[in-house]
Amino acid sequence: MRKVGIGVAGVGRMGRIHAVDLVSRCAKAGLACIYDADRDRAAALAAQLDVPVAASFTELLDRSEAVVIATPTGTHAELTVAAARAGRPVFCEKPISLDRATTLVTIEAVEAAGVPFQVGFHRRFDPDWVAAAERIAAGELGRVTLFRTSLRDMNPPNPAFLAGSGGFFVDVTVHDLDVARWLVGEVVEVSAHGAASDPAFAELGDIDTAVVVLRFANGALGVIDNSRSARYGYECSTEVMGTLATARIDNPHRSGLEWRTPGAATRDIVRDFEERYPYAYAAELDAFAECVRTGAPPRVTGRDALAAFDLAVAADESWRTGRPVAIPQGVNA
Amino acid sequence: MRKVGIGVAGVGRMGRIHAVDLVSRCAKAGLACIYDADRDRAAALAAQLDVPVAASFTELLDRSEAVVIATPTGTHAELTVAAARAGRPVFCEKPISLDRATTLVTIEAVEAAGVPFQVGFHRRFDPDWVAAAERIAAGELGRVTLFRTSLRDMNPPNPAFLAGSGGFFVDVTVHDLDVARWLVGEVVEVSAHGAASDPAFAELGDIDTAVVVLRFANGALGVIDNSRSARYGYECSTEVMGTLATARIDNPHRSGLEWRTPGAATRDIVRDFEERYPYAYAAELDAFAECVRTGAPPRVTGRDALAAFDLAVAADESWRTGRPVAIPQGVNA
Amino acid sequence: MRKVGIGVAGVGRMGRIHAVDLVSRCAKAGLACIYDADRDRAAALAAQLDVPVAASFTELLDRSEAVVIATPTGTHAELTVAAARAGRPVFCEKPISLDRATTLVTIEAVEAAGVPFQVGFHRRFDPDWVAAAERIAAGELGRVTLFRTSLRDMNPPNPAFLAGSGGFFVDVTVHDLDVARWLVGEVVEVSAHGAASDPAFAELGDIDTAVVVLRFANGALGVIDNSRSARYGYECSTEVMGTLATARIDNPHRSGLEWRTPGAATRDIVRDFEERYPYAYAAELDAFAECVRTGAPPRVTGRDALAAFDLAVAADESWRTGRPVAIPQGVNA
Amino acid sequence: MRKVGIGVAGVGRMGRIHAVDLVSRCAKAGLACIYDADRDRAAALAAQLDVPVAASFTELLDRSEAVVIATPTGTHAELTVAAARAGRPVFCEKPISLDRATTLVTIEAVEAAGVPFQVGFHRRFDPDWVAAAERIAAGELGRVTLFRTSLRDMNPPNPAFLAGSGGFFVDVTVHDLDVARWLVGEVVEVSAHGAASDPAFAELGDIDTAVVVLRFANGALGVIDNSRSARYGYECSTEVMGTLATARIDNPHRSGLEWRTPGAATRDIVRDFEERYPYAYAAELDAFAECVRTGAPPRVTGRDALAAFDLAVAADESWRTGRPVAIPQGVNA
Repeated sequence: MRKVGIGVAGVGRMGRIHAVDLVSRCAKAGLACIYDADRDRAAALAAQLDVPVAASFTELLDRSEAVVIATPTGTHAELTVAAARAGRPVFCEKPISLDRATTLVTIEAVEAAGVPFQVGFHRRFDPDWVAAAERIAAGELGRVTLFRTSLRDMNPPNPAFLAGSGGFFVDVTVHDLDVARWLVGEVVEVSAHGAASDPAFAELGDIDTAVVVLRFANGALGVIDNSRSARYGYECSTEVMGTLATARIDNPHRSGLEWRTPGAATRDIVRDFEERYPYAYAAELDAFAECVRTGAPPRVTGRDALAAFDLAVAADESWRTGRPVAIPQGVNA
Repeated sequence: MRKVGIGVAGVGRMGRIHAVDLVSRCAKAGLACIYDADRDRAAALAAQLDVPVAASFTELLDRSEAVVIATPTGTHAELTVAAARAGRPVFCEKPISLDRATTLVTIEAVEAAGVPFQVGFHRRFDPDWVAAAERIAAGELGRVTLFRTSLRDMNPPNPAFLAGSGGFFVDVTVHDLDVARWLVGEVVEVSAHGAASDPAFAELGDIDTAVVVLRFANGALGVIDNSRSARYGYECSTEVMGTLATARIDNPHRSGLEWRTPGAATRDIVRDFEERYPYAYAAELDAFAECVRTGAPPRVTGRDALAAFDLAVAADESWRTGRPVAIPQGVNA
Repeated sequence: MRKVGIGVAGVGRMGRIHAVDLVSRCAKAGLACIYDADRDRAAALAAQLDVPVAASFTELLDRSEAVVIATPTGTHAELTVAAARAGRPVFCEKPISLDRATTLVTIEAVEAAGVPFQVGFHRRFDPDWVAAAERIAAGELGRVTLFRTSLRDMNPPNPAFLAGSGGFFVDVTVHDLDVARWLVGEVVEVSAHGAASDPAFAELGDIDTAVVVLRFANGALGVIDNSRSARYGYECSTEVMGTLATARIDNPHRSGLEWRTPGAATRDIVRDFEERYPYAYAAELDAFAECVRTGAPPRVTGRDALAAFDLAVAADESWRTGRPVAIPQGVNA
Repeated sequence: MRKVGIGVAGVGRMGRIHAVDLVSRCAKAGLACIYDADRDRAAALAAQLDVPVAASFTELLDRSEAVVIATPTGTHAELTVAAARAGRPVFCEKPISLDRATTLVTIEAVEAAGVPFQVGFHRRFDPDWVAAAERIAAGELGRVTLFRTSLRDMNPPNPAFLAGSGGFFVDVTVHDLDVARWLVGEVVEVSAHGAASDPAFAELGDIDTAVVVLRFANGALGVIDNSRSARYGYECSTEVMGTLATARIDNPHRSGLEWRTPGAATRDIVRDFEERYPYAYAAELDAFAECVRTGAPPRVTGRDALAAFDLAVAADESWRTGRPVAIPQGVNA
């Protein structure tokens, strides 16, 4: 079967990962064309991957069956709407926008256009998490009592990135919030605590370490810890405790090689999300391609992204006020 | 060298563990005598262990160089004071009392008597934790940025026990609070969240699951999760993340045997604190015996117990009010 | 950069894996065309992968820059020679032939044609093994003293396959023998022991379990255990012990999900070589493509395959005679 | 219940371990007295452990209910016979003697005396191995097809020890041979291969690395690897593969603490048999005490020791001749 021809807009770090995966990791999704406002960057990658480069986003749409939006955050909403109006299914990196109203308008515009719209919450496509989700959904875990997850970067991003990131909770915690909703259900209360272990963050009025406590509609508790500076490596591990069983996904080692010297056995630790998730990024694009082909709704939608964004904003508010923030229910229904 | 002759008062579950350890696990501490208000229980254990039984607590003091108080909580303070006034070093199970004033009076009485006074926070003597503490103290970890720990029982205790337990935070969380102070330093704010995953707890106005967030004086964040019903087994694991390194102590498996059937590799999980801590209970008594012998202050004192108790009470207040509770500094100095 | 267009001859289990990898896992190698004597099988896969199908091996050569030979063993030599004479670099599944003379003639014919010739010893391209090999080559391990490896299938192949397999040592052990030469060096003596744990193998005069002991030219000892019926899963693990360090590659779990039920923590075990080696098969084709592009000699050549084959035949002889078999040195130089 | 009063003869490394365990690790066995030909050594340990010291072996027998013989190997047989004739149950470190005839005469003398006689194969009492043995005996593993075990010292012993050790197979491999018989059954053929990775061993005509292949009466194959110089630590791990399941006992880590630095997670490795076996040495003495008390035959007898010794001698012969050695069956019945 022919692969779905996908155009990638924006080939910075994430867009480049997607483009390479489309060429050499995806089974159903293929790379049709790339576009970047930085024409030299686009040309270089196009040459490396032996694919066409588009001179404009419009040309990208013309040459593609569907698009991946991996441009700077500030352009996500506009490009998403443009693509949808052109009848192109859209896969957009998170966040759709740092502004709630813009996010909602974008979602509604895409819904009006009637095209599939998937947002880049890759963990929903990682085989370990999918296996856990399926067994939880099948009732094997019983009723969830405690959800616990750690998401930590090895080293902080550069200051330029931070400025446009939307803040710690919207940039980092949002991934865990999406997973929490997916594996456990809706959240009714968020309590967040933050600290700047690195004085540079304190100077920016920002934090690099956070603990977020969730109360779910079904009565379970959840706890998230996040860091921009774990130093030892990248971490993404989760535990879901239930009345019948507990699912645990630990961080994998970077390789299967253990090196032993006198008295010490050493394993490598993964260093970033690419090493942590060897399958998820290609899998999310293959799943998207399947939606393009069949018209089925994506597993993680704009509405899911909005819900996670709302929780992240609530976490931010809780951190600033020192109070738990109640989450209104049903507003995204 | 002769072992220090220790008398054990109270031979319910914990006292029995101590008595057996004194007979067959300790190198420096030995069992001199046992006493229990339930004379039949005392006589049966004395026969099993081939040691004398005392007819009264006073007789126990007469026959012992030092005492372990493992009687019901309500009697800890009185017996501790009596033993101290008789010049006997005291090892007392936690809590000293469920009442702060009584706790303080007891500590002061023991201090006035000038005998060593150790409280039963066993994790301070487990080799894994001791190794972590030493490396942290030596600066190998750098500055602590995040402390995380899980303490979970496999199944809830019987309701009779719960009634006199002092509540979830004083009974369960207090162990993690002591470890937090030991490994990271003083706590300045506690925020606690609780839930009753089992309706029986809700009916008692109690909880069986909790998440407690700590803010330390040195700027680090801490997070504790606790459960009375992990179901899969007993868990006690900890992580201390620092600017130079991260220490992680995972729950050990119950045995080194892995059993493989088609497609599945299965390991046993420890089921209770005795299986989780094969060394700590004997080690804390040997350390106590060393203090008895040398007069050195114990590694974990009545003042430490009071500080952990205060944090547990603050956690309880935070849970009830839904607000973070600030911890006054220096009050125990 | 354009991918090297590879034609795949034979789309049984291994050929199909290669074809799919060329479409969706390889970065440098692409799928140009497929061919199979079973035209329906070829047509079905071609449709699935959206690639051309060749009506003959000759047509496959015409449409490809290089070829993968994954046809039945009996045809490997002839097709390899034909491809080489047509100037096409060849990647051939092992064994080149079950007959030594034919193997040698084939190697010489390819050498005369001057095209790259790589044989399918995939472990040489698995990242864990490559990392170990590099550190051993860099001297980090010191002098090797003991080599140990286990290669075990979960369940035996069907009897039809067995008939043409060349026997246990040539079919199974040969992989470990190649790795032994690669990581440690030349072998001077082979001693093999076999057993038929399943009576069906005994009836065929064959075995399903073997232990092979190696003596290396550098004085190290090696031990290989193999099974066609490990039952619990597929296993491929290795240990190289040296005077400075020891490298250990354990079998990975099939997923990162641990499932906990009361008292038991269960992990999945990989079931076959595809699950065990998620990277190696694509990596060996990418490495081959690189050789095609640059003309560089492959990392594992026909001469390597012949040396491993000779060791396997020696193991077979040792098993049959009950005596160690000395390996003449220098014959493949 | 009163502990069985055990006298320890010989307080070199092993005897000292036993004496300390009797004082502080055993539940049923206690230390009555110690004796050593080196009176100063005996006196120093007696003072440390607060136990009586005997001036002669005869006095030790007078003061003890049963004895542990941990003197130099050359005296084992004579002291064992003397103790048995005095009616004292005997626990003797292996080997009983380096001479087969002496070993047999000793066994027969003890049998004539009718006292329990246990030999120091500690692994039979380690909880992991006991659990495996019980499940195998219960049929959970099915029919055994492959037995694999590694026993490796971290560093070689001093040359003085080597001189009287009986050689590599009698000193090291014998432990694995006993475990093989225990877990799988009688051995019918032994093939041994040895090497001297350290030239010092070659100069002594000895080896420091060996691989031994076993063929069992029930058709299973077994493979043992041994080293005196693993360098990275002490290793004792075993695998028993069966038609229904596979049991695997891996080497434990030395502590539960994992230390993470950028990109690396490091665990401690055990360094010697004391660290590897925290329970087995005390457990074998408690089991012996139980036999003393009840008169029940020990789990591992003089006949078992003789059978393992015979296999070790066969391994030595196989190594020297380069041929498999058949084991006569039924000779120890």
